[in-house]
Amino acid sequence: MKFSSSCLDTDTKGDEMASQPQHTTFLERNAQYVASFGDKGSLALPPARKLAIVTCMDARLDPEAHLGLKEGDAHIIRNAGGVAKEALRSLILSQRLLGTREIAVFHHTDCGMLTFTAPDVQAIIKDAAPGNAEIAARVEAIDWLDFKDLEKAVKDDVAYLKSEPLILEGTPVTGWVYDVGTGKITQVA
Amino acid sequence: MKFSSSCLDTDTKGDEMASQPQHTTFLERNAQYVASFGDKGSLALPPARKLAIVTCMDARLDPEAHLGLKEGDAHIIRNAGGVAKEALRSLILSQRLLGTREIAVFHHTDCGMLTFTAPDVQAIIKDAAPGNAEIAARVEAIDWLDFKDLEKAVKDDVAYLKSEPLILEGTPVTGWVYDVGTGKITQVA
Repeated sequence: MKFSSSCLDTDTKGDEMASQPQHTTFLERNAQYVASFGDKGSLALPPARKLAIVTCMDARLDPEAHLGLKEGDAHIIRNAGGVAKEALRSLILSQRLLGTREIAVFHHTDCGMLTFTAPDVQAIIKDAAPGNAEIAARVEAIDWLDFKDLEKAVKDDVAYLKSEPLILEGTPVTGWVYDVGTGKITQVA
Repeated sequence: MKFSSSCLDTDTKGDEMASQPQHTTFLERNAQYVASFGDKGSLALPPARKLAIVTCMDARLDPEAHLGLKEGDAHIIRNAGGVAKEALRSLILSQRLLGTREIAVFHHTDCGMLTFTAPDVQAIIKDAAPGNAEIAARVEAIDWLDFKDLEKAVKDDVAYLKSEPLILEGTPVTGWVYDVGTGKITQVA
C-alpha cells in the first residue's frame, strides 16, 4: 500500500469529524451562485454537446473547468477511479433517454485507486469492526474495482464500452489521463 | 412517460451522431485551464473539507460552482439520479482510505429519472434490437434505480446511508434538492 503513514493514520482512526459540518455553509455559498445564475434556467435537459464524461470523484478534479464545459453541455459521471463498468447504467440512460452520442473516459495520475488492493480495504474495514460478521460479509460482497496500471485501466475501460452491447454501436469512445500536477490531459485511447 | 416528443424522437432514432466529435476540441479547451493552473499541483489527495457529495450526472449541474467548492475540497460522485446506493463503493473508499467524514446527497428538479420507469427504458432498448435475446437479458438484469418522488428519493437515500453498516457511524448525512430553474438549493433531509 502506497499511502503515506499520515494518511493511513487519519483513515484508521476513523472517528475524527470536522469541527463544524460543511453543510452549514452550503446556503451561503450557494447564494453567490444564484446571484449570478443569469439565463441558465432555460437550459434543456438533453446535453447540448451530446457528450458523456466518465471520470474520478477525486477532489482535485474539476472536469467542467479542465475541459472548458459549461452548464448544459455534457453528462458528467464520477465514481472512485472513474470506472466505466459502474457507470454503465448512467451511460445507457444518457444515450437512450437523453441523446448523448459520444463518451470520454478520464482517469488521473496519483489516483487513490492505485494505492490499495481489494484485500487492503477489506482488512481496514474488518479490523475496525472485529468479530462483526455482518460487516465482514458485506465487505466481501463488494467488487472494489481496483486497478494497478493507470493507462491500462483507461484502455481497458474504453475497450469495455466499445464492446458492451448496451452502448450504441459506433459511439466514439476516447480515453484520457488527467495530470493532477499540471492540469494537462493526454489521450491514451 | 413525460419526455417531450422531440426528446423521444432523438432517443429512439438512436443513430444521429454529432457532426464532429467533441473530443477533438478537448486539448484546445484544456490548454486554457493549464495556463491558469497556478499552484493547484500541490493539492493533497485527501479532500481538504473531509466532504463527499453525491449528485446527478445532469448536464445543467455544476456542483463545484453551485456550492462554491474549489479543486481539492471534496469528493464528488455523480450518476444518473444521484443515487446513493450506486455510490456506496465510492463513499466507503472516500471515508476509509481518504478521510472524508460528511456526506451530502443532492437530487434536482426536472430530473430525467422522474420521467421514465424501468419497463419504459427496457422497452426502448429492446425495441431498438428486435429479437436480440442477449440484449433483452442484459437489459432485464440491470437495476435502473428509477424513482417517482424527488423529495422522497432524497430522504430515502439519506436514511439508507445513515443505516448502512459500511458507512462510518455518526457520519453527518444531509439531503438537498437543487432547482435547475433558479440555481437554488433547499435542504430536505
